[in-house]
Amino acid sequence: MTYDHIFLQHLQSLKAEGRYRIFADLERLVGEAPYALWHSPEGIKRVIVWCSNDYLGMSHHPDVIKAMTDAAERYGAGSGGTRNISGTAHSHVLLENEVANLHGKEKGLIFTSGYIANEATISALGQALPNCVVLSDEKNHASIIQGIRAARCERRVFRHNNLDDLRANLSSLDPKRPKIIAFISVYSMDGDIAPIENICDLADEYNAITYLDEVHAVGLYGPQGAGVAAQLGLQNRIDVIQANFAKAYGIIGGYITGSNSLVDYVRSTASGFIFTTSLPPAVVAAIHKSISILRNDNNLRTQLWQRVTLLKKLLEKSSIPYQSASSHIVPVIVGNAAECQRVTDILRQEYGIYVQPINYPTVPRGQERLRLTVTPNHTPQMIQELTDALEDIWNRLNLCLAA
Amino acid sequence: MTYDHIFLQHLQSLKAEGRYRIFADLERLVGEAPYALWHSPEGIKRVIVWCSNDYLGMSHHPDVIKAMTDAAERYGAGSGGTRNISGTAHSHVLLENEVANLHGKEKGLIFTSGYIANEATISALGQALPNCVVLSDEKNHASIIQGIRAARCERRVFRHNNLDDLRANLSSLDPKRPKIIAFISVYSMDGDIAPIENICDLADEYNAITYLDEVHAVGLYGPQGAGVAAQLGLQNRIDVIQANFAKAYGIIGGYITGSNSLVDYVRSTASGFIFTTSLPPAVVAAIHKSISILRNDNNLRTQLWQRVTLLKKLLEKSSIPYQSASSHIVPVIVGNAAECQRVTDILRQEYGIYVQPINYPTVPRGQERLRLTVTPNHTPQMIQELTDALEDIWNRLNLCLAA
Repeated sequence: MTYDHIFLQHLQSLKAEGRYRIFADLERLVGEAPYALWHSPEGIKRVIVWCSNDYLGMSHHPDVIKAMTDAAERYGAGSGGTRNISGTAHSHVLLENEVANLHGKEKGLIFTSGYIANEATISALGQALPNCVVLSDEKNHASIIQGIRAARCERRVFRHNNLDDLRANLSSLDPKRPKIIAFISVYSMDGDIAPIENICDLADEYNAITYLDEVHAVGLYGPQGAGVAAQLGLQNRIDVIQANFAKAYGIIGGYITGSNSLVDYVRSTASGFIFTTSLPPAVVAAIHKSISILRNDNNLRTQLWQRVTLLKKLLEKSSIPYQSASSHIVPVIVGNAAECQRVTDILRQEYGIYVQPINYPTVPRGQERLRLTVTPNHTPQMIQELTDALEDIWNRLNLCLAA
Repeated sequence: MTYDHIFLQHLQSLKAEGRYRIFADLERLVGEAPYALWHSPEGIKRVIVWCSNDYLGMSHHPDVIKAMTDAAERYGAGSGGTRNISGTAHSHVLLENEVANLHGKEKGLIFTSGYIANEATISALGQALPNCVVLSDEKNHASIIQGIRAARCERRVFRHNNLDDLRANLSSLDPKRPKIIAFISVYSMDGDIAPIENICDLADEYNAITYLDEVHAVGLYGPQGAGVAAQLGLQNRIDVIQANFAKAYGIIGGYITGSNSLVDYVRSTASGFIFTTSLPPAVVAAIHKSISILRNDNNLRTQLWQRVTLLKKLLEKSSIPYQSASSHIVPVIVGNAAECQRVTDILRQEYGIYVQPINYPTVPRGQERLRLTVTPNHTPQMIQELTDALEDIWNRLNLCLAA
């Protein structure tokens, strides 16, 4: 093939910018969390994982695993088809009822990923509403942006969490045009939380659909883990709540909930929902169990928040500059791809601590960071050891300390 | 919400056209295939499934199930992150090596679905190659079409499997422009097979990348189930072989294989690959086992082809008009959405036979059909009973018989 040199050039520039990604090859053994085995170039080493999205360790919960193995033995390892063509298992129907109930909505719909839930839904909604405009927070996830593009409708990007800019955009649009405000409750890379109530007020004023991504919030916030909108008593003011099963719930997959007609429309028309094999019933059973556990028990959430509070306190004490926000996500900004890589290399090689450097395009250039996530499995001693290590590296590399 | 009436209107027109989809709510119990329990509005009924894409019944294979349950007990129910951020399990690495080896390629990359494999890869390739044109077979899958759209590059649709039209398109383009020919080996809804060798010849002549979707072929065709290109000895002439784990392999997920630099480029840049949680290690283990079984044993394939031959023979004997093609897929054309629905309603209610009607947009209007798929679990007697039922219904509804 004569095209290889083009791909090689692209790869070389990624390497030159210090943002070529090397995946950490891991074995996360049940019972060992937060430790994992890292298949490094020099052999297998034990590391402690400080960047997992399995926020509550639910992927290793014995009841969740049992739900998966029982269902695999009963229903097999796959669904056998797309949802329409023999691939709707009774477990899908029950899980869709569960998520609708969790969010107090009429109907739920599950997708193979949170990414596809956003892309397929926004794309379908944007195509359904004639001359639609999507007002999109500038820090929205790639899947929302792809959904707007696929809808081929107008996109207005408003400044992050900025109500004035959102209002300015809304007021400049023809009142008769259909509008969707697409935003996120907990922003994954910054850990900050949207002003949901104010956005709902603006949506009412300008008659816009509210589309809220709660991917990094479900399981963690609100009564029964229903998310930030639920915590604030605002669920009924959100038209579409989208979330996933891959973060606090610990498995894979995504979903939306909303009114009967909206969700049924997406079910009936969204390409990324229709033309794909459905999640295996064994996966669905594990998800369902995980949601049930987190609806009925606050212990893991309580433990998580204790750990988060301790981590932030110790970082402050060490003057490690983290982005303070009210969520469970703790971003430590380094601000340079090569330096970020260097910090994480030292952490892994010398301290056995695994944190993936986060670079462009996941965050803007100049905002490269460590994104720390703590789980109930991280003991106070582990948190102390992490902050000690960071303090040491910060001194050694002469990195900026917090003011 | 004041938007609901718009969605309702769309749904009403789907209903008026007879193509509103009602999913069959099924329990496919291990050991019972091809039977399943159908949760019908009137209660639970036992039906025989005649439209599954689990072509070889691998989702219920005891060794595949054991691989899933063993891995769930060892690694848990989820991967814990995106591939880049703590979500690469050692099982992902091993499976990527396996698919590269299966197709004789340098490198493999796995995705959460075949849909995303197509969309993310084509979108990434189209954006990498300046001023690229994608030449796309008119019957390409929705995921390929979405990928081309997301790439925002020029798309030239050529008539289905038509070499003259492909040549006419290629010759009309500037020789210096990068070109990708995107096509499928076994077309899912028609069951026909592409003229792969001739397309490769044209690709050589006009210096185009060949992108081949083998989703409905892997596991079934060629030595070790490597697909149609392998069967014809053409694997080395295909630049990208894309396929999935959800049809003959019986689970979920998709992949590509190709040169190191091309696949590494997709790994490094494709939005639908980067920004999504990876497949659970337990799912990956089940996939890996399924591929290994089908690489080493021809029995299930042999049984499948015996059943396919018998089904086609009995349909011919009954003058039921099916679309004759050399693949394992047997489309019986009805040609009208309402009539197609009626046939399948009678089959299900009176004969306990479940076949989903296939309507627009999955097939063009006027091409509505039953898409029959037989598996090694369907006995000769079941095949006889199906064709008897179809013969009876065709007579009763006075549908067109084969000439």
